[in-house]
Amino acid sequence: MPGPIQSIERAAAVLRLLARGSGRLGIGDIAGALDLAKPTAHGILRTLQGVGFVEQDPATGKYQLGAALLHLGTSYLDANELRSRAINWADALAARTGESVRIGAPVDGAVVVVHHVFRPDNTEQALELGELLPPHATALGKVLLAYDTDLAATVRGSELAPLTHRTLVDRTVLARALAVVRQAGWAGDTEEFRSGEAGIAAPIRAPGGLVVGAIGITGRVDRLCDAQLRHRQALVGYVLDAARAVSRDLGAPH
Amino acid sequence: MPGPIQSIERAAAVLRLLARGSGRLGIGDIAGALDLAKPTAHGILRTLQGVGFVEQDPATGKYQLGAALLHLGTSYLDANELRSRAINWADALAARTGESVRIGAPVDGAVVVVHHVFRPDNTEQALELGELLPPHATALGKVLLAYDTDLAATVRGSELAPLTHRTLVDRTVLARALAVVRQAGWAGDTEEFRSGEAGIAAPIRAPGGLVVGAIGITGRVDRLCDAQLRHRQALVGYVLDAARAVSRDLGAPH
Repeated sequence: MPGPIQSIERAAAVLRLLARGSGRLGIGDIAGALDLAKPTAHGILRTLQGVGFVEQDPATGKYQLGAALLHLGTSYLDANELRSRAINWADALAARTGESVRIGAPVDGAVVVVHHVFRPDNTEQALELGELLPPHATALGKVLLAYDTDLAATVRGSELAPLTHRTLVDRTVLARALAVVRQAGWAGDTEEFRSGEAGIAAPIRAPGGLVVGAIGITGRVDRLCDAQLRHRQALVGYVLDAARAVSRDLGAPH
Repeated sequence: MPGPIQSIERAAAVLRLLARGSGRLGIGDIAGALDLAKPTAHGILRTLQGVGFVEQDPATGKYQLGAALLHLGTSYLDANELRSRAINWADALAARTGESVRIGAPVDGAVVVVHHVFRPDNTEQALELGELLPPHATALGKVLLAYDTDLAATVRGSELAPLTHRTLVDRTVLARALAVVRQAGWAGDTEEFRSGEAGIAAPIRAPGGLVVGAIGITGRVDRLCDAQLRHRQALVGYVLDAARAVSRDLGAPH
């Protein structure tokens, strides 16, 4: 069987590079970062520009991601069965808990937010659709780490970045926390991702029992947890109910 | 100067194909649609799968878009200056008019929605971010057709699909309508895209005066138009104000 096609892999690497940081890079930055000869990088960029995946700023000559990728990204969502089955349950979970709801799926050693329902209180909130969350520091991520062996393997090979002073950065401590997640069937985080914020999440299972995603709520730590920083059982129950309902709609066994 | 890299162009064509319709295709469908030999299509698909741009359903063997594209698509939004400058003005326009607001940018002979603010009335509405709108049948599209020569050239080569009985499908009639748009500085549609729905849009200009996008409102035809189906001047004024404000923030000349 022939191996992967190098030029496509390089094109994907260029797109990932542009997706990081400010998103605007010169040809020299790109060639340097990917260890490519400038003419090679230039050929890839011109081709990506031709298909609308990359745009070049006429004033500065710098490259950025193109609008065609936005359409591909949202087309992914339209075809995503997990998301389409989960939308109504996510709305109901936000209404019952009064908190914002996210559905996450594993991708490339991280968790991508495939659906985001705002906290139903009319405050200004930024859409986090498509954002990548750190698996070790979020309730959604811990659920996926506990059940998705691919994701767990990717994370084993990388540093556990401290995002707050409460982030679990010790592998042994994290492994113990994940064992608890598997036992309890849900995961929580308390100010491990962002100060002042907590999360509760539970696994979504496809037919056969495979965990394909997670659904959870995020909100102020004093609303999600009691004075001992224990996650409130009523909220945990609502999250578990929602996760089971989505799994059932996906056709998972009871 | 060397030409575009064929394997990257083919990979892009596979992704576009998967973005259409149901989004799940077998290897035979893909090879057939793109006129590729099956082993060629297979090599491309395996490479795209390796980089997370394509996923294969283990049960059916069919291919669909991958979650990594969602992250690239939303990274495009984060780096998009038009969108970041326009977000606050779009919120204000929705509040002033009581209608939903969209910002569109030209891509590949269509208009892609780069920002969508729901109608501020707490009704259930679906996020249209990343959707493609037909240029000849929407107010946003007509603005871009009137000022974007690339988009206009692409559309000249294709059929003007009738989406309602009011869609402008005659090129001469459309050309006359676009001349009116250029004269008035804004575009309207009345049930040309969807029955019962009207739109009003105006151009967003970058420094130098180049039109880089459009901002507009959409809503029930009886709210946006008077009994003679003329777009209400007060609403047109609000849309023009918003478009000028965004252009000013982008640094366009007054």
